[in-house]
Amino acid sequence: MCIYVSYVVHLFFLPTFVSKLYFTMEIEKGTALGSLETPCLLLDRERMKKNFASLEQRLQRFGVALRPHMKTVKSLDVAKALFGEAKVPITVSTLKEAEEFAKIGLTDTVYAVGISPNKLQRVQKLRASGIQLKVILDSVVQAQMLAEYVQQTSDPIQVLIEVDCDDHRAGINPTNKKTILSIAEVLSSGGAALEGVLTHSGGSYSAKSTAQIIAAAEREQKAIVDAATLLRKHGYSIPTVSIGSTPTAYLAHDFSGITEVRPGVFMFFDLHMAGLGVCTTSDIAISVLTTVVGHQAKKGWIIVDAGWMAMSSDRATAGQKEDMGYGLACNEQGAVIDNLTMVAANQEHGILAFRDGRKDVRQRFPIGTTLRILPNHACATAAQHQAYYVIDDNRVAAIWPRFNGW
Amino acid sequence: MCIYVSYVVHLFFLPTFVSKLYFTMEIEKGTALGSLETPCLLLDRERMKKNFASLEQRLQRFGVALRPHMKTVKSLDVAKALFGEAKVPITVSTLKEAEEFAKIGLTDTVYAVGISPNKLQRVQKLRASGIQLKVILDSVVQAQMLAEYVQQTSDPIQVLIEVDCDDHRAGINPTNKKTILSIAEVLSSGGAALEGVLTHSGGSYSAKSTAQIIAAAEREQKAIVDAATLLRKHGYSIPTVSIGSTPTAYLAHDFSGITEVRPGVFMFFDLHMAGLGVCTTSDIAISVLTTVVGHQAKKGWIIVDAGWMAMSSDRATAGQKEDMGYGLACNEQGAVIDNLTMVAANQEHGILAFRDGRKDVRQRFPIGTTLRILPNHACATAAQHQAYYVIDDNRVAAIWPRFNGW
Repeated sequence: MCIYVSYVVHLFFLPTFVSKLYFTMEIEKGTALGSLETPCLLLDRERMKKNFASLEQRLQRFGVALRPHMKTVKSLDVAKALFGEAKVPITVSTLKEAEEFAKIGLTDTVYAVGISPNKLQRVQKLRASGIQLKVILDSVVQAQMLAEYVQQTSDPIQVLIEVDCDDHRAGINPTNKKTILSIAEVLSSGGAALEGVLTHSGGSYSAKSTAQIIAAAEREQKAIVDAATLLRKHGYSIPTVSIGSTPTAYLAHDFSGITEVRPGVFMFFDLHMAGLGVCTTSDIAISVLTTVVGHQAKKGWIIVDAGWMAMSSDRATAGQKEDMGYGLACNEQGAVIDNLTMVAANQEHGILAFRDGRKDVRQRFPIGTTLRILPNHACATAAQHQAYYVIDDNRVAAIWPRFNGW
Repeated sequence: MCIYVSYVVHLFFLPTFVSKLYFTMEIEKGTALGSLETPCLLLDRERMKKNFASLEQRLQRFGVALRPHMKTVKSLDVAKALFGEAKVPITVSTLKEAEEFAKIGLTDTVYAVGISPNKLQRVQKLRASGIQLKVILDSVVQAQMLAEYVQQTSDPIQVLIEVDCDDHRAGINPTNKKTILSIAEVLSSGGAALEGVLTHSGGSYSAKSTAQIIAAAEREQKAIVDAATLLRKHGYSIPTVSIGSTPTAYLAHDFSGITEVRPGVFMFFDLHMAGLGVCTTSDIAISVLTTVVGHQAKKGWIIVDAGWMAMSSDRATAGQKEDMGYGLACNEQGAVIDNLTMVAANQEHGILAFRDGRKDVRQRFPIGTTLRILPNHACATAAQHQAYYVIDDNRVAAIWPRFNGW
């Protein structure tokens, strides 16, 4: 028995048209959004570039390197648009991302999820292929596992010790000096390259004020510098002192002792970040194009063809001052429609309703009306799509594939 | 300028091994789960077949046809495994699904999302290719649009009028006789084929008891039969009277007047359905394989490499008696670990913790431990993956690709 399955996405980009075999339709370059099949994911190229440049310049002023987290974008075309020919250092959340971005020469890569034994073979393969893949860990057990691996392979793998700055997720509390030093000892006596320390202020995402984000940034900076100082005091060189979250990258006042910053979502931004005050809705570079397919006029409902399959089920704004439901509606041109949010989402149905109780929806948004929905969480919404419909001045300029998977 | 991007998934299935170029690893047939790279999506083939056969037999006893909703599975291999050579009628949530399943001869297809003008061209193309694609609508405006389309194309497109049985989403309340009859009149005078009526008891998903599901089933049956009776009284033939939801399909006692049922999630089942009492956790056919990558021992946290990217952010059990967080943990063999749920999910990190406060996690679940997470919502979790790792007796038997997109 031989089963052979082939699944192909071909995108041709020619001066006058984009032929999308995969979606079995042809799209002229310059097509107006109202002519597209929906739902689809729009990417405003200029907003994205502006967002990137803005944080890049801020960090340059502080003399700290940017190591963007590519989990948000997962697209070689996005990387090329943002970095040009520059071979910038990157952060990834999957080994697949490391593999993909290496195809365009991005090979200085931190894999920012704690390493486990079942991934070592692939890590080795990626490193052997020329990727300077750095792994992270936060336990003596992992350090021992890695030291054994180094012994077997003679590959002096680079390692960052993960530090916990806010009780949010993984990492070692910097006051737990014994564990940090034990890990360093196991790694260096085992032949691994202790490259540095890394932390992530995940807690900053649930801040209730700018002051809280600034406080989170201070904790992040202090925690990582404490860990680096401890290790240096014990003779380790620690070239890399890495922090990273979009809110703290934007609002931190003090990067002293930090060598690099790893934000991701800032490239696109989203309602969650807008709710934190890190951007405004007019900075958000991605949105889901959708069409009105029905109404429940008495209830003031507009039913659209974008449900959680197009938006994701992420409810990141649920705990914020302004709960945006599953997203905030804009007209086809991208202007926010005040108070019109997606209040419910099924697989391929979204229900929009006005938060202020207005019910004149059938007249204002007849069947076939094209709308755009700003996402709560850009990483999650983008992950629901296989391509970006890149727009310049609200017309389709290109279609860029994106990848998922591990 | 000519950009050409090719993105290829090849799966080779040979008697002795599965070569997965896409994931750049080879997997022997019979591989134990602990040897797989994680996260990945497991599909227990026997459970799936049993789930399908069970509802199929129930509906046969009531003499009502099954038109399974393929939005849950999105895989030609799953369809082949369940239907064999039978060309069963199907339900789809996207035109892409209609297109894909037609490749294996499944061409009696209901597209169960209200039709909009920007999809008509593709609908026509699919119908011209041999798919008996039926569309749904719930407004006079849509009926007029469709009638115009029929005039232009001379394609007597089949239409089902969508009825609202529970104030949950789309459809016309059956007491709104005027609208129902106006739609029928516009369609039939325009040359479209009024095929029947359709409803979906979405409200049954939030039932708090079996009695409430049975009541929802009664409402669903009454609403659709009322609409069919009304139309027949006015001379329309109405061959199809279609209902569909997994909870009501399982618990309805009266299918009189119904011709077909359109459940989807029953093929896989999930924690949401288990919470409704429609299945048990041992019926759930899909789970996400994951690896322990860290701990926060004082907090009793186990950190695993499956976050929302692998599980989805669906929180369908949040309103149920037992809130399962982002999923319920099982050991590698699939036995439920009581009270161990995913309490938080980031993109590629999940945090598991015991609901009863046990904290001995580091000893019981050391780094590298393989676990399985049962999903809240099978449709949403499956959508996060590109393939099913099909397991027989907890060993890999095949890898089946799945598709997403529109």
